[in-house]
Amino acid sequence: MKRDIDRLMQERGIDVAVVTGAVKGNATMYYMVNGAGISHAIVIKKRGEEPVLLCGTMEREEAAASGLKTIDTSKYNILEMIKEAGGDRLAASVKYYQTIFEEFGVKGRVGFYGQGDVGRNWEFLKALDEGLPDVTVVGEFIDDIFITARMTKGPEEIDRIREMGRKTCEVVGHIADFMKSHKVDGKTLVKDDGSPLTIGDCKAEIKVALARRKIIEEVDTIFAIGRDAGIPHSRGNDSDPIELGKTIVFDIFPQEAGGGYFFDMTRTFVLGEASQEILDSYKTLEECYDAVAPTLEMGEKASVYQTRACDFFEARGIETPRTDPHVRNGYVHSLGHGIGLDVHEKPTLSDFSGNTDTLVPGSIFTVEPGLYYPDKGYGMRIEDVYYVHEDGTVENLTDFPRGLVLEV
Amino acid sequence: MKRDIDRLMQERGIDVAVVTGAVKGNATMYYMVNGAGISHAIVIKKRGEEPVLLCGTMEREEAAASGLKTIDTSKYNILEMIKEAGGDRLAASVKYYQTIFEEFGVKGRVGFYGQGDVGRNWEFLKALDEGLPDVTVVGEFIDDIFITARMTKGPEEIDRIREMGRKTCEVVGHIADFMKSHKVDGKTLVKDDGSPLTIGDCKAEIKVALARRKIIEEVDTIFAIGRDAGIPHSRGNDSDPIELGKTIVFDIFPQEAGGGYFFDMTRTFVLGEASQEILDSYKTLEECYDAVAPTLEMGEKASVYQTRACDFFEARGIETPRTDPHVRNGYVHSLGHGIGLDVHEKPTLSDFSGNTDTLVPGSIFTVEPGLYYPDKGYGMRIEDVYYVHEDGTVENLTDFPRGLVLEV
Repeated sequence: MKRDIDRLMQERGIDVAVVTGAVKGNATMYYMVNGAGISHAIVIKKRGEEPVLLCGTMEREEAAASGLKTIDTSKYNILEMIKEAGGDRLAASVKYYQTIFEEFGVKGRVGFYGQGDVGRNWEFLKALDEGLPDVTVVGEFIDDIFITARMTKGPEEIDRIREMGRKTCEVVGHIADFMKSHKVDGKTLVKDDGSPLTIGDCKAEIKVALARRKIIEEVDTIFAIGRDAGIPHSRGNDSDPIELGKTIVFDIFPQEAGGGYFFDMTRTFVLGEASQEILDSYKTLEECYDAVAPTLEMGEKASVYQTRACDFFEARGIETPRTDPHVRNGYVHSLGHGIGLDVHEKPTLSDFSGNTDTLVPGSIFTVEPGLYYPDKGYGMRIEDVYYVHEDGTVENLTDFPRGLVLEV
Repeated sequence: MKRDIDRLMQERGIDVAVVTGAVKGNATMYYMVNGAGISHAIVIKKRGEEPVLLCGTMEREEAAASGLKTIDTSKYNILEMIKEAGGDRLAASVKYYQTIFEEFGVKGRVGFYGQGDVGRNWEFLKALDEGLPDVTVVGEFIDDIFITARMTKGPEEIDRIREMGRKTCEVVGHIADFMKSHKVDGKTLVKDDGSPLTIGDCKAEIKVALARRKIIEEVDTIFAIGRDAGIPHSRGNDSDPIELGKTIVFDIFPQEAGGGYFFDMTRTFVLGEASQEILDSYKTLEECYDAVAPTLEMGEKASVYQTRACDFFEARGIETPRTDPHVRNGYVHSLGHGIGLDVHEKPTLSDFSGNTDTLVPGSIFTVEPGLYYPDKGYGMRIEDVYYVHEDGTVENLTDFPRGLVLEV
């Protein structure tokens, strides 16, 4: 949580944190400006002091909504600096930061954060590091202070994610009803004109259902049938018809409109009747889920649950990333991931070496075992979101039946 | 265009270009993988050779859609490298790149491109630069090879932007009709239940109208009334009622769903009757537009048009960024910007020192003069998209009447 930032800066010897870049697609910036609707900004956070927001004059009203002390950057006049530097924009940018850093007393070990252009920032930070004798540019390769702070969520954040969960479940229900509202012709759902209902039709309906709830697809929703459902990240093929008896993996991870908190859930549906093989696999998947999810416990290492899932599947002769890192048939990924302002955050329910993530109060993460058999033409996943309360209670925020078969 | 990349690499002494990061929100990556629906990747482009795409095994099918030679990164086994490095993920990442670079013969001046975490990449590129004796890490601060290549668009790209323009104009027309379909009560449009139609209602309708056309708002559309319309980047206040006689600035810049090409246009509407002052200002704005847009010419510097717009307004006693860099009343921004996979690209129709952008075949950009009087409670902007054909013809892709007053 935000209150952890000063402690983390202290522990890591960071005197000042500088967050740069756009707000959109830049979770740390969004976090620090409290979602203010500005396009891009600089946030300066000195250890032990309140952050200051610098942004352009055209966005002064939006910037004020951040609740932060706000500085209008037009006073630094970058265009004049470019002119003085003879058109050398790198030199002008160093001068611009130098001017700001001097005004705010930014010196010592200065950490840089936020999303931006990799090559541009490499040149810029080199020039800054060399050009400002009082400043040492610092980066954090893994789990930086903001990612670590964001790893736990407070009540306001959880309220927003809970509301996202409510809306997301509504959309999943709507799409299940939408499919069921179609007639069957042979092995396929058909529209009023007799043509097959397709993945593309369902995806179009998903887009409108999301928009009606003012939530957005950051990237295309996964709605994949048959063999594609057997490839975890396949987003589905628009022209595929919705055929009875095939698994549909519906993995939906919308974000608050304007950039903000995500939800993330998956249901697997079969229209009409499922084969015995699919039913058996789904039963195994549910058993894995039921063997692991009830054991989620505050204070436990997040990696433990991936180990449990692998143990469970391997005991049934199913391959896992532990038996084969290239596994494509069986259980082929990690058990889950934190969610928040990014769709993938900490903690990571993965057992890679060095994963020290722990379930603590404020942790919110997915549990998503899956089974994939692309060569047999099917795949399945169940994904819910869990939250660890202050008192250690672990709550499932995903209020939607598991299902599988949708009768038509 | 893409065919320029090898020449640009040659001119700038770059032996290999490495593009990293997500596809979403990372225009250069999207460009290089031809919009393939993968989540993140590494693209290696050696000078004079075809690019190679490296990505995870779970996204192998999506990767194939790029049309590039594709390498499944699971063969490098990063988890094993982390284990070997005793959990040191920075060392493991350097080893990972070293392995890949050796396999593909990547050495010399290696440019890095794409969006990513600034601090993380600073640490990573430092370690790579120091750790690999054959590699010199290079960044380009301004107008890197991909941004420069993307500055001109070929026929396929223009077809996509043209189609985005068609859909965007449809949405603008739909929203104008949507507002006009409401009854008037006193000075305000009202809904069937008698409550005022608000900015929020219109924005909700915009979201659904976009979703129906499978295009997305990357950030919130600008739909601002009255004083907010007088602040160019104000996105509008959801609770404001749609009042007659006030200017509404509707600046809509949607993107192809899944990340892709943008369009960008603005219309200013007044419901019912406009005051004489607003009509006069709008006439001045149209006169500026008509003084500048017909002079757009292949081979001319892009900065010239901002100079012309400033000349025009200043001759009428209106302040501009040239008379006051802090200007808030009058003409307060640049004349336009390129559009493409980012909503703001090159060329820049701005007169800052060192802007050498030129209108050439394949240039596609906005022309968007505006007048802003927040203290008087209004603002206005007209924004169209222009394209320079191979033969020098300059075409307006924005097929929508300028309007101003919408009768109710």
